[in-house]
Amino acid sequence: MLTMISRIEEVAKSVDQRQVECFLTEINRAERIFVLGAGRSGFVAKSFGMRLMHLGMIAYVVGETVTPAFHKGDTLVAFSGSGKTKSVLEACQTTQQIGGTICLITGTRSSPMADLATCVVHLQTDEESVHTGSDHFDLRQLKGEHRSMSQPSTPLGTLFETSAMIFADSIVSALIELKNCSIDDIIHRYSNMQ
Amino acid sequence: MLTMISRIEEVAKSVDQRQVECFLTEINRAERIFVLGAGRSGFVAKSFGMRLMHLGMIAYVVGETVTPAFHKGDTLVAFSGSGKTKSVLEACQTTQQIGGTICLITGTRSSPMADLATCVVHLQTDEESVHTGSDHFDLRQLKGEHRSMSQPSTPLGTLFETSAMIFADSIVSALIELKNCSIDDIIHRYSNMQ
Amino acid sequence: MLTMISRIEEVAKSVDQRQVECFLTEINRAERIFVLGAGRSGFVAKSFGMRLMHLGMIAYVVGETVTPAFHKGDTLVAFSGSGKTKSVLEACQTTQQIGGTICLITGTRSSPMADLATCVVHLQTDEESVHTGSDHFDLRQLKGEHRSMSQPSTPLGTLFETSAMIFADSIVSALIELKNCSIDDIIHRYSNMQ
Amino acid sequence: MLTMISRIEEVAKSVDQRQVECFLTEINRAERIFVLGAGRSGFVAKSFGMRLMHLGMIAYVVGETVTPAFHKGDTLVAFSGSGKTKSVLEACQTTQQIGGTICLITGTRSSPMADLATCVVHLQTDEESVHTGSDHFDLRQLKGEHRSMSQPSTPLGTLFETSAMIFADSIVSALIELKNCSIDDIIHRYSNMQ
Repeated sequence: MLTMISRIEEVAKSVDQRQVECFLTEINRAERIFVLGAGRSGFVAKSFGMRLMHLGMIAYVVGETVTPAFHKGDTLVAFSGSGKTKSVLEACQTTQQIGGTICLITGTRSSPMADLATCVVHLQTDEESVHTGSDHFDLRQLKGEHRSMSQPSTPLGTLFETSAMIFADSIVSALIELKNCSIDDIIHRYSNMQ
Repeated sequence: MLTMISRIEEVAKSVDQRQVECFLTEINRAERIFVLGAGRSGFVAKSFGMRLMHLGMIAYVVGETVTPAFHKGDTLVAFSGSGKTKSVLEACQTTQQIGGTICLITGTRSSPMADLATCVVHLQTDEESVHTGSDHFDLRQLKGEHRSMSQPSTPLGTLFETSAMIFADSIVSALIELKNCSIDDIIHRYSNMQ
Repeated sequence: MLTMISRIEEVAKSVDQRQVECFLTEINRAERIFVLGAGRSGFVAKSFGMRLMHLGMIAYVVGETVTPAFHKGDTLVAFSGSGKTKSVLEACQTTQQIGGTICLITGTRSSPMADLATCVVHLQTDEESVHTGSDHFDLRQLKGEHRSMSQPSTPLGTLFETSAMIFADSIVSALIELKNCSIDDIIHRYSNMQ
Repeated sequence: MLTMISRIEEVAKSVDQRQVECFLTEINRAERIFVLGAGRSGFVAKSFGMRLMHLGMIAYVVGETVTPAFHKGDTLVAFSGSGKTKSVLEACQTTQQIGGTICLITGTRSSPMADLATCVVHLQTDEESVHTGSDHFDLRQLKGEHRSMSQPSTPLGTLFETSAMIFADSIVSALIELKNCSIDDIIHRYSNMQ
């Protein structure tokens, strides 16, 4: 667990604060936010969407039952390690056509999604994969085959999803301050039916 | 397929129109509607919730990501063949404690949920099970062991879910008239991201 | 409700029995079945998938958490009224590339999905839409604007999903006979955790 | 983000290695694993369940469509910060009655779930809440009101879910080694339909 955390710490330290500011500004002023991710990134997206609802924001998960149509002026928050997952990329393309804002949290510097996004937060979890072209960097991470000169072999879990989850939670903390949310109001929105 | 339809037709003919009126009135005046069902009834509940969203109503599925807390004055629409499925019953109890309205679509005349509900629509899909006490009437239906004097053995699918789906769609039709919904507005709400 | 049922009955009567036989044969011999549909058709797909699991078959819902990769020899059961819903069509294309079998339940005679499918069950819920080219036939159905010479205006719910649900249940009944499933075994598989 | 990571690191350091060993042993020898959590913990549970499937293990998410009945000998992995979330607690009780194994990942030392579990991994994210009795420790965390003598106020995201996700990933890494999983086999199981 400690090896993973140390690796996540490196990721956190390398985040470009201007990207964080851009993301926070967009989320703070968004009227309706649609979150999306595929696979495990989808669970991170849902975790973030649930918190936005707790803060009193209007948030939807793409693909859930009562999610309405995405309209001009809406904001899509996409989580994608590779920046090219097909279903998420298509949603980004739709967003652009409709005239929405795309905020991307990704593990890859350059990607089709990054090209479309208004705002990109790059979590540097992928240096090696850029060189090898592997689409399955996280597998090597899982297996602990992640190596670099400055750092011995480390048995990692999937770095992108975990880093993205912590990043998203830090945004939630910042939004609570920015919007001056009351704890009582937040509690009042917690699901009381499960 | 025709045997099932004939059986659903019998169910439809036996529905008490005062129950339908009560249900329609409650749904029409509800401000926020939470839908719920377990297993296959849950999919019927979601189908209904999605249509309510299409009509511009505020609808949530209990258990989905951005579903907020249920508050006093909210309406729960529960689908339960037996009227006693644990998780759904607990949600009904919570609803009552909070001061919400419970609308129940059920296949059983008397049940713990029916005792709590403001409004019950009884789809008569269960005559025999009342006598046998079986909690698994739908299995006999599936296997075609459903028998009565007036009717030979018929290989049925689960009667309650299908009848409930058709009933819910008929309510949607009625709501479109009552609320004078515009087709263009409905189209405008269809999910455009999948 | 009765108007809808009468319309579903017409659909049932017009189903081509050779198509039903083909579908039943494919499902009966399938080793792993993946079900898929978008929107409300997705709930019908899940209802069917759940029943297959109850019968002891290996079934998965595309997009759920533990659904594994689709491999050569696997069977995809797609539910699509229009036969061209993007996400479902892409899954059909993937299935074809991998060497899987596609079984399509659809409301449209000719479609991109029908071109790819090994086996198509056409539920005739769409005559007018073929002529008008409308992609939103179900909206007119909902509003009751479905008209034909032989039939006055009828306030319908969405005909395809409901017909597909009843069709799928009739397949389940047939499978129970074909596989000679024991009721006790089926009960034994019912979820006991919700 | 760094403050959160530093707090997660403290949690990681305080984990009892015997608890980790117990958990790893149970998961490694389990034949069928059912994962469960409510709210955001549910997404962590699903993330873990998906990885188990990738490793070739038989894993189910409680509440998803094709999840079969839980039987004697099966293993439940429950994620619950408080150890008393109603729906999860009920699943633990059912598990015990059936004769299954309960593995709990929790943020609270003593709880109704901990009393039932064969194996508890306590992530120490809750010291203060024990004293205040608050069921909403994570809200204070979110707001940054988490204080202790040795540590200034820190704006945290929800510590339990994030720590649990990293813990679960570290278990996945260990399982890959224990089971000597081949990367090719893992890739072969990745969903190829979304």
